Amino acid sequence: MLNIATAPLATSLSLAGGIGFIAGGYDTTLSNLETNLHHASQLIKSHPDQSNPACKFYTQTGVLPLGVGFINWGVDRNEALRILRRYRVAAVWLFAPRDGMRDLLGWVNGVRGLYQEEQMDDVDDSKSKSKETTAPQIWIQISSIAETTTALKHLHPDVLVIQGSDAGGHGLARSASLITLLPEVSNLIAEHYTPSTKTVLNEHQPPTLLAAGGLTNGLTLSATLLLGATGGVMGTRFLASHEAHITPGYQNAILRAVDGGVSTVRTTVYDRVRDIKGWPERYDGRGIVNASYLDAVGGMSDEENRRLYVNEMKRGDEGWDWDVDGRGRMTTYAGTGVGLIKEVLGVGEIVRQVWGEVADVKRRVRARL
Amino acid sequence: MLNIATAPLATSLSLAGGIGFIAGGYDTTLSNLETNLHHASQLIKSHPDQSNPACKFYTQTGVLPLGVGFINWGVDRNEALRILRRYRVAAVWLFAPRDGMRDLLGWVNGVRGLYQEEQMDDVDDSKSKSKETTAPQIWIQISSIAETTTALKHLHPDVLVIQGSDAGGHGLARSASLITLLPEVSNLIAEHYTPSTKTVLNEHQPPTLLAAGGLTNGLTLSATLLLGATGGVMGTRFLASHEAHITPGYQNAILRAVDGGVSTVRTTVYDRVRDIKGWPERYDGRGIVNASYLDAVGGMSDEENRRLYVNEMKRGDEGWDWDVDGRGRMTTYAGTGVGLIKEVLGVGEIVRQVWGEVADVKRRVRARL
Repeated sequence: MLNIATAPLATSLSLAGGIGFIAGGYDTTLSNLETNLHHASQLIKSHPDQSNPACKFYTQTGVLPLGVGFINWGVDRNEALRILRRYRVAAVWLFAPRDGMRDLLGWVNGVRGLYQEEQMDDVDDSKSKSKETTAPQIWIQISSIAETTTALKHLHPDVLVIQGSDAGGHGLARSASLITLLPEVSNLIAEHYTPSTKTVLNEHQPPTLLAAGGLTNGLTLSATLLLGATGGVMGTRFLASHEAHITPGYQNAILRAVDGGVSTVRTTVYDRVRDIKGWPERYDGRGIVNASYLDAVGGMSDEENRRLYVNEMKRGDEGWDWDVDGRGRMTTYAGTGVGLIKEVLGVGEIVRQVWGEVADVKRRVRARL
Repeated sequence: MLNIATAPLATSLSLAGGIGFIAGGYDTTLSNLETNLHHASQLIKSHPDQSNPACKFYTQTGVLPLGVGFINWGVDRNEALRILRRYRVAAVWLFAPRDGMRDLLGWVNGVRGLYQEEQMDDVDDSKSKSKETTAPQIWIQISSIAETTTALKHLHPDVLVIQGSDAGGHGLARSASLITLLPEVSNLIAEHYTPSTKTVLNEHQPPTLLAAGGLTNGLTLSATLLLGATGGVMGTRFLASHEAHITPGYQNAILRAVDGGVSTVRTTVYDRVRDIKGWPERYDGRGIVNASYLDAVGGMSDEENRRLYVNEMKRGDEGWDWDVDGRGRMTTYAGTGVGLIKEVLGVGEIVRQVWGEVADVKRRVRARL
């Protein structure tokens, strides 16, 4: 959700009782990230209700009540750490290292060590605010047992984001949905973190498990809680929020799409037509089927497909109207839950709606048990 | 599960309180089906405990307490109906018509009309057993909203089997997992079958919704019940049963496989190397990654890949040992839940285990609510 999950979306989510993430992305300059973090701090500071827990957290700790996500194969680590030193955040989400999870060790150490020097400097001032500043939580996104095992062994994440195959945007091309991935990961955790066993994986506390991929409402969230998650992560749902930094064409395409498993597809075509290079081979991305995809399947060269894409950009919002005029070529990353999304709401309304739906599910289940 | 889900597996499942299906398959001769149905009737008749509800059902109705599944693009309908007239079954499961769901109308009418003539003949004998014989239930397998809509409109199925992308074997190449597919189908049903609305879809009773695709234990089954299903269908789990008609090589490959989303893949390669022609283009099948798949991805021609496959058949059970020696080429259709399957059990034990796990989930949920 690069350039979509900016400061307004992330802060609104944190103000609503969740935790929002700013998409730090994969570019080497990271210039948007710094702007976004600055903007986020302004939004929190100027929020009319400073008794909101997110505002109080910021005032008391100097830490922004939100996280930053990185697509690690393409980010300059030193530059990222420099920004995170300047703008303290509550969590850092790591995803898609070039060669494998072990690539993230330098990142994890870098993030965990962010404020240590400062705390050393403050050693004489035991009341100083910075002493209370702990390093950001480390969130690691995985989509397989192999990635989980390496992450547990080497990275000791605070949170594992378990991404199933229904997720929109990039993820492992070969992956299970949460239906089987969550139980398989939960079993692995249960095996290694029982009090009686001592393995190389359990030298640290077990991570919190969050589910991602297909979560669009309280019902889908509830199902993943049953399957072993402690909470859930939503992406596509927030594309249809007022706070998303998104063009009307993209947002309307989300609202229109139904039959999410058929109207979306996992492919590398959308990177190729947009000339985005660098994703490791094991990844692809799920987006709404459009003319670029069908032409690629039909045998069109990437060069020609890209030329048509670049040309299409001139059409503005109409470039997303694939299902209206058959010509749309703008990329619409979205998960299979897209058919469950019917209206654009404020982020706060979405959060309240989801929690209300979870409460409904609880009531319904209680009545049946 | 053609040639695997034969009479012993299907009858054991029905005797254990579920309903088993014999794979009728897609060949035009259907000769194995007739043999299997004959075998099933022998197994039920000779079961030591004739007070078992499945045995009593058979004695009282003359209907075998099981179903038959067809892969419809390749089956001779008249021949299939002839067999079903001879061996009465409780349910007929239809899947993969050549061009779309409407192709199944002739099948549905044929199956529903199976015993009408007979009943007309018996009109004077109001006590005759055949009068009590109703037509088999119609089970329709779908993986999309489009298929569901057509099925509801034209076929009025008794049961909709909702197959998510985690399923082993064949299914729609582009599909969502149960996480989003089940809620989207449930919403469609709820919309059309509320008492206040009257639409072309709801002239009949709403179908029973069963979930398929990734269900390997009571936990995954429970999650799909929460998502809107009334029950679940398991395939891959029963590959690891004593009653499956399966080679040790295939069965061991199921037990060995972990990390189901990575160790399996959706592809048409396994049809191509085995020279199976006729699957409509919208389908592929999920199987365990092996040398055939990796060679195909590496650019090997189907002809050469097939030659190696045919050669591999001489190795017997070792032909499945891809993950042992890197050479295995035998096809191992399996769902992403394969990593949750750890032992071969009797069908009855599997059913009792799953029900026990569902009861555990209920207890656990009750304690938390």
